[in-house]
Amino acid sequence: MKLVRHGANGDEKPGLIDRAGGLRDLSSVVRDLCGAALSPASLDRLRMIDPESLPLLPADTRLGPCVGGTRNFIAIGLNFADHAAETGSPIPAEPIVFNKAPSCLSGANDPVILPKGSAKTDWEVELAVVIGTKASYVHANEAMDYVAGFCVCNDLSERAYQFDRGGTWTKGKGCPTFGPLGPWLVTPDEIPDLKNLSLWLDVNGERMQTGSTGTMIFDVPQIVAYLSHFMMLEPGDVITTGTPPGVGLGRNPPRYLKNGDVVTLGIDGLGAQRQAVIAFDDWTAKVAAGEPTN
Amino acid sequence: MKLVRHGANGDEKPGLIDRAGGLRDLSSVVRDLCGAALSPASLDRLRMIDPESLPLLPADTRLGPCVGGTRNFIAIGLNFADHAAETGSPIPAEPIVFNKAPSCLSGANDPVILPKGSAKTDWEVELAVVIGTKASYVHANEAMDYVAGFCVCNDLSERAYQFDRGGTWTKGKGCPTFGPLGPWLVTPDEIPDLKNLSLWLDVNGERMQTGSTGTMIFDVPQIVAYLSHFMMLEPGDVITTGTPPGVGLGRNPPRYLKNGDVVTLGIDGLGAQRQAVIAFDDWTAKVAAGEPTN
Repeated sequence: MKLVRHGANGDEKPGLIDRAGGLRDLSSVVRDLCGAALSPASLDRLRMIDPESLPLLPADTRLGPCVGGTRNFIAIGLNFADHAAETGSPIPAEPIVFNKAPSCLSGANDPVILPKGSAKTDWEVELAVVIGTKASYVHANEAMDYVAGFCVCNDLSERAYQFDRGGTWTKGKGCPTFGPLGPWLVTPDEIPDLKNLSLWLDVNGERMQTGSTGTMIFDVPQIVAYLSHFMMLEPGDVITTGTPPGVGLGRNPPRYLKNGDVVTLGIDGLGAQRQAVIAFDDWTAKVAAGEPTN
Repeated sequence: MKLVRHGANGDEKPGLIDRAGGLRDLSSVVRDLCGAALSPASLDRLRMIDPESLPLLPADTRLGPCVGGTRNFIAIGLNFADHAAETGSPIPAEPIVFNKAPSCLSGANDPVILPKGSAKTDWEVELAVVIGTKASYVHANEAMDYVAGFCVCNDLSERAYQFDRGGTWTKGKGCPTFGPLGPWLVTPDEIPDLKNLSLWLDVNGERMQTGSTGTMIFDVPQIVAYLSHFMMLEPGDVITTGTPPGVGLGRNPPRYLKNGDVVTLGIDGLGAQRQAVIAFDDWTAKVAAGEPTN
């Protein structure tokens, strides 16, 4: 299944993508794609529904982040050997864990707002994992039982905030709109080989990142198991699993996002995202003038 | 007002403390102390209620974390000059920010479970701030308008996970039960001087930590304003603001919590907490035997 959340920002309703690619409304069946609705039993129930029996929605309906109720938005750093190399970092012996503020989650095609005064906003295409069931002290060989599905995440990062402001990476990872998630939450049965998915990201149509989940240092079951030994994972928690090479920081000279750029990115079988980049002041002027911001 | 959340773990209901110290049920008035219920307008409405008109609950009712719906549990590191010194760290130029998993939140008097195999679980009494209104790019002189109230937090920390496992501090800060919060959420009108609150913590009746909010490096309005420039703060978000000297890590030799220890801690006007410390295996044995775990 390809599950979605559609509608206005902060008021999203559940939906799914039918066999013809149409958007169908699921709000008569579940209230939201969060909490118990992400459990294996709930997903099995949704799978029994004939998508064509559900109301069809306009193709241009906004999609929000593909999971609701996220409390913990966890990220794994330097999880591709070639990306670690481009940042000048050693290959980590254990997963590097940091947090993105859950308030930075946004829809796959929502604009990315450059933070006030930001000069170093960077892109990172990543495979994200959505937790479906509470997980504490689980082993890698059972970890997939706790996963509801997968999606594309752009782990946007302000490099000056991340590296030059003291303390952990948190400051550069959670600015509003720094977590486009989706378009779809794809259940594991639709992913034939989790270790062989291509990832790509373009800026203004120019290819910046190319990678494969095959070169991840720690794979998804290892990451879920590892995290569950340090914290209780809960339904709706999102784990974004690291980026392949090609980020702006790794270029010579470094290249960062500017007002008017368009970022497109995707992963095999998980769909694609498109974000128009807008400077903070332009964004607030648009909002003040009542202009469309999407 | 002193607001509380009472009842079984995960199913807490709102309440408040009346003038005589009695526990009153608020669940006929608000569904939970989360989201819009934390706004200034909502708190003003609660303030109009005569506490004695509400149902009185038994004094031994369990109290949960004093705020619900927390998505972001943020912590400030090394925010007391004398604590920075005891850990051998320089005084930070900007607030050090890290995250605790929201799933580690627990009640003020709930047991603290030592993680599986943990040898270095440490205590930290802290003043926590609860956000009442969305805050983005706010200035310090208006920051208090976005605060719903204050409470005691024990920022429990596994020092080996925090420092010896690579990456950020996250791994040692979010284990289950590592975030006792409460007993009360105290509204700002009940705190005459936020810069002159005593903090204390005992282990088995022996005083370990003594401090005053007067020696904080960054004060509450500065912290709220600072964070709001890096992320959108949301109602129910918790910011715990750093610990005074006297943690186990800073002792010579270091001292860590062990099975059977009892930790008590408190802050002027915000009440006190009491946690019985239990090893993971003893905890699971108790749960398996159906014994009371509180």
